[in-house]
Amino acid sequence: MREYIKEHWQDFSDLLRIKTIAAQHIGIEETSTWVAQAFRNLDAKKVAVWDDQGGNPVVFAEFTGQSDKTILFYNHYDTQPAEPLDQWATDPFAVTVQDDHIFARGIGDDKGDLIFRLAWVKYHQERGDLPVNVKFYVEGEEEIGSSHVVQYTQAHQADLQADAVLWEGGAKNEAEKLAIVGGLRGIACLELTAVSANVDLHSSKASYAESAPWRLVKALNLLRDDQTNRILIPGIYDDVRPLTPAEQQQVATLDFDAAKVIAGEGLKRPLLTDTPRTDLTNQPTITINGITAGYQEEGVKTVLPRLATAKLDFRLAPDQDPQRIPDLVRAYLDQNGFTDIKVEYIVGQKGYRSDVNHPFVGLVCDTAREVYGPDSYQYILNSFGAGPAYAFGDLLQLPVLGIGIGYAGSNVHGANENVRLTDALQAVEHLELVAQKFAQQ
Amino acid sequence: MREYIKEHWQDFSDLLRIKTIAAQHIGIEETSTWVAQAFRNLDAKKVAVWDDQGGNPVVFAEFTGQSDKTILFYNHYDTQPAEPLDQWATDPFAVTVQDDHIFARGIGDDKGDLIFRLAWVKYHQERGDLPVNVKFYVEGEEEIGSSHVVQYTQAHQADLQADAVLWEGGAKNEAEKLAIVGGLRGIACLELTAVSANVDLHSSKASYAESAPWRLVKALNLLRDDQTNRILIPGIYDDVRPLTPAEQQQVATLDFDAAKVIAGEGLKRPLLTDTPRTDLTNQPTITINGITAGYQEEGVKTVLPRLATAKLDFRLAPDQDPQRIPDLVRAYLDQNGFTDIKVEYIVGQKGYRSDVNHPFVGLVCDTAREVYGPDSYQYILNSFGAGPAYAFGDLLQLPVLGIGIGYAGSNVHGANENVRLTDALQAVEHLELVAQKFAQQ
Repeated sequence: MREYIKEHWQDFSDLLRIKTIAAQHIGIEETSTWVAQAFRNLDAKKVAVWDDQGGNPVVFAEFTGQSDKTILFYNHYDTQPAEPLDQWATDPFAVTVQDDHIFARGIGDDKGDLIFRLAWVKYHQERGDLPVNVKFYVEGEEEIGSSHVVQYTQAHQADLQADAVLWEGGAKNEAEKLAIVGGLRGIACLELTAVSANVDLHSSKASYAESAPWRLVKALNLLRDDQTNRILIPGIYDDVRPLTPAEQQQVATLDFDAAKVIAGEGLKRPLLTDTPRTDLTNQPTITINGITAGYQEEGVKTVLPRLATAKLDFRLAPDQDPQRIPDLVRAYLDQNGFTDIKVEYIVGQKGYRSDVNHPFVGLVCDTAREVYGPDSYQYILNSFGAGPAYAFGDLLQLPVLGIGIGYAGSNVHGANENVRLTDALQAVEHLELVAQKFAQQ
Repeated sequence: MREYIKEHWQDFSDLLRIKTIAAQHIGIEETSTWVAQAFRNLDAKKVAVWDDQGGNPVVFAEFTGQSDKTILFYNHYDTQPAEPLDQWATDPFAVTVQDDHIFARGIGDDKGDLIFRLAWVKYHQERGDLPVNVKFYVEGEEEIGSSHVVQYTQAHQADLQADAVLWEGGAKNEAEKLAIVGGLRGIACLELTAVSANVDLHSSKASYAESAPWRLVKALNLLRDDQTNRILIPGIYDDVRPLTPAEQQQVATLDFDAAKVIAGEGLKRPLLTDTPRTDLTNQPTITINGITAGYQEEGVKTVLPRLATAKLDFRLAPDQDPQRIPDLVRAYLDQNGFTDIKVEYIVGQKGYRSDVNHPFVGLVCDTAREVYGPDSYQYILNSFGAGPAYAFGDLLQLPVLGIGIGYAGSNVHGANENVRLTDALQAVEHLELVAQKFAQQ
């Protein structure tokens, strides 16, 4: 099979040659049509392009296998923009193979994962021996927040029934260990706005007039204790489910080399925590993504600004409801006399964490050990970033596991995005073993 | 004389037709040459264009009068830019007379004051009866901070000896009372910078990495108590000289209608003080002129910003040394663990307050009463803004009093800058009476 995949992944590489930029509304129809046609060419039992819930269409496909087990793949056909183009050594919308590397926008996130999964299906369809039933949910707005995923998964839950979900992808980390990702943190993005007057005033009036930047600074200051990195908003930790002993064991195995992190990122301050593995996995954070107020050019303008805004994101533990965050912030600010600060919810996603005791988790880890070697993978309870896994996990009550073809140098979202063919072939080998063992259960 | 001035101010109106924008290095040489020539045309005893201390040249002139008293005028020939031009109803570099109004960039600040003072000198030179000796110090970088004024006044202090200083201008306030300004507040402009890492990081790393905006917010929060509007930096009030009983009396007469101020400026918060007159005159303030950090565009970017900066200005009581402010901030931040916050001094000016008991103050006020009417002026210990008056007042140990031709609608620095001819003629009448009475003392 390895030789077959090595030869035939290029049967699907045209997907990389289509420019599909969700943020710029580029190539959505062309790409979704291409994906649906690829499924039809593989003799799928069912192919559907769903657009009944708005947003970019979702391509669904279903293949019949030799067992009654069903694996649902989540992938997405949209990518990040390729700009700035001058940082690319190759054409991002060509497919450039150099030694073991394949360069193209989307090869790491997420067209590449889809391509190698399609090649794997093709291999089995030609032989009529797909080990399990396979379903694909391929969406087109992951890079802009998957804002319709809950509607689509709920509206089409009959089609989406499965026994396990394999998430869009995964990667080897810097220590060349495969990360098997069992979930995602949640996120809530808020904007806080202070308005102090109808116009910017001459700053001499600071003798009697409050200004927006001071209101904002004083409000922000209330939200977090910088000594402990604790969020000070009452109620925010209520839904943080403590890690079980089994989960704690998993967390303890995470690679985290503090000295390397500090040097690599050039951190100017000590780490905020002695327990980074646990905190990355299970503690909410509050980040000021940006502040804008008043005069920001060269030199001096002695103005008392009327307007100040801050963009915040809260990374959430998997059980926290992002929509509750603005209410908690609102109540806390009100309670402290900051009723004048406007709090807006911009966007958010709930987190998700697969049950670490579910047999499918064990199966994926055991097969990874076989394919990658005993010390060559790590199970991550939930990735530190966000994503729409909850829309599948909560709905289907299943583990959602990310395994894929990337590596630490894949430059996902950046220039010169690439994967290594060896990793991709290994990922297909792993997928094959997962499917075979799952069929036998 | 009134009729003469009404006719002859236009002899000098070409000054308004020259574009002189210090911030853009436009018209400096042409204008300083024009001003020097105007003095020569008036048969000045001495005219000099000083450029020995760098910066834009200072035009100095000296006229001999009939008494041994000398009045030194401070004026400036540079103006603010006229942009945005589409907000002007007239050509800012033409001289447009409409009914009682004269429109032109600089007519209110400060070419207009200079023009009417020149017309007054011309009137007397033609008759050979200038009541006092007159000196002019006309600089060309007032609108960009007068950064060479201390050097020039010190280097040329022999030429600048006088018995009183009349400052660049003044205006009637909204109640149509002439403001006689006896000084200026000081100012210190600082920039605070926080750097937390070598690169912007993914915000999931907020679990262990401190970020620049949080450092900055926490540092700024330390600097001011928003309940009392007090600056919390130790030592900052040390050099605030309490008002004398005579000064307190003056302050109590200041026009300040809280309800009008709140409505006019659309203030969203209550006034910060019950004593706005005193605080505007004699209390330092700390203002955040601007904050910039991280992502400030539409939507969301979940970034942990490495860099955050704030521009601050401190309005200072007249005796405070602006250069001491960054040292006080530095010490206070260090003491509170914020050694990583960079503190830069950008620019500053010391304040100045004329001795309210000096006989020249009484003379200017008494003559104002005669010209404007008993309730039609108010003496302001120091204006709430800043300016280089200290360079003259401290050096010559003299009162520095601002009287001039503007009014509340002059739109100084803005579009449609204008004065009313009636006010200008009244100002010359006042100047004449000041000079006559001063000659007799």
